[in-house]
Amino acid sequence: MGLKLYVYPLSQPSRAILIFCKTNKIDFEEVTVDLSKGEHRSPAYKEINPMRKVPAIVDGGFKLFESHAILSYLACAYPGVADHWYPADLFKRAKINAILDWHHSNLRHGAETFAIYSTLAPLFGLRLNSQAAKEGEKLLMSSLSKIESLWLKGDAKFLLGNLQPSIADLSLVCEIMELEVVDDAHRQRILGPHKKIVQWIENVKNYTNPHFEQVHEALYEVKKTLQSKSSSTAGLNSKL
Amino acid sequence: MGLKLYVYPLSQPSRAILIFCKTNKIDFEEVTVDLSKGEHRSPAYKEINPMRKVPAIVDGGFKLFESHAILSYLACAYPGVADHWYPADLFKRAKINAILDWHHSNLRHGAETFAIYSTLAPLFGLRLNSQAAKEGEKLLMSSLSKIESLWLKGDAKFLLGNLQPSIADLSLVCEIMELEVVDDAHRQRILGPHKKIVQWIENVKNYTNPHFEQVHEALYEVKKTLQSKSSSTAGLNSKL
Repeated sequence: MGLKLYVYPLSQPSRAILIFCKTNKIDFEEVTVDLSKGEHRSPAYKEINPMRKVPAIVDGGFKLFESHAILSYLACAYPGVADHWYPADLFKRAKINAILDWHHSNLRHGAETFAIYSTLAPLFGLRLNSQAAKEGEKLLMSSLSKIESLWLKGDAKFLLGNLQPSIADLSLVCEIMELEVVDDAHRQRILGPHKKIVQWIENVKNYTNPHFEQVHEALYEVKKTLQSKSSSTAGLNSKL
Repeated sequence: MGLKLYVYPLSQPSRAILIFCKTNKIDFEEVTVDLSKGEHRSPAYKEINPMRKVPAIVDGGFKLFESHAILSYLACAYPGVADHWYPADLFKRAKINAILDWHHSNLRHGAETFAIYSTLAPLFGLRLNSQAAKEGEKLLMSSLSKIESLWLKGDAKFLLGNLQPSIADLSLVCEIMELEVVDDAHRQRILGPHKKIVQWIENVKNYTNPHFEQVHEALYEVKKTLQSKSSSTAGLNSKL
């Protein structure tokens, strides 16, 4: 029994874990849990993750959910993972943990709310909602500014001024990549003023390619599909 | 330069850190940051925590914010802290990390939203909001049920069936304790159906007393003050 990853390519934290494993040459079996078909609500999946969310892992007999806990577990459990991903040094690790904790109620909450209510809602049986999208965008914009001013100071290549990425870089960048699916005008409005963020995304991409782009292919496909249907969202877009 | 804790007694994660340090005999200097007076927005406090929230710590020259990151840092940095608080074992630690990660967007988000919009809003210059309180209560109730069914199985004394508490027990119980400030009828409606949660709170209290009760005294004082003004919130209460 090796490592099984239960993931869905439109889930940001699923992509972070896939890229992490591929970049670090950790062997795994990928099990797709199609959220759009409700597969996360099946009794079989409840046995894997009782929270009925992706990602989750089963490593031998050990089950785990929550992407940050999974990333730190994998970084510690697999000896081939270089230290920079999740440093053993107490102080460096604590700073990375703080960024990951902050992420939950800030960048993640803002980006996810914006992406869902501006664009993705119909895929999951929800309604678009311009007010919720605006609130998400506000939190997203302030989160991006915080990242730039606190953790990408000067010409820092990665968070905390590091020369190589950590699991926090991967988790946060995969979150921001979700904006690929929104209308180009929205993305430009949000990312345009954040030059350091754009450069940081490129740095993480370059460090983890070809895996980064390969794992994001499904997201780019959704973007193409949504663009071909863009007339149906034009009404909402004009209000944002 | 020893350990300084920047805290506010009405902040659940501040209380968790205070109880943790006192129970584990970690010496510290307590610096109160009065949120009701806006002290977290002062330029001086921005130097301590640029996110302008409590809690934060300065340990020697090392600054850190985010309560979970602080608790895991303290558990690792201070050799006198017993292993059960944050086990060195990779699998046990990963399970505790998963609970702490889950906490952010579930129990914490639900309990905080309910407590603020049902009761505490005026203390922070906000308005009570019965719709927001209801949404918070819904998430809070489902979170409490999840905790009982997944992590307090059988006659488990602490989360994950442990015989001694971890930093996750302390963080989550301090969150639930925030309900002390809401109207008794609300608290009874929320905690009444969750017998295991009530017993678990008692277990954490008993393990960490007298520190638990001492740290919560300020919360009980606020409760008394609010009860004496209860006529002003009766309108809202009747709608919930």
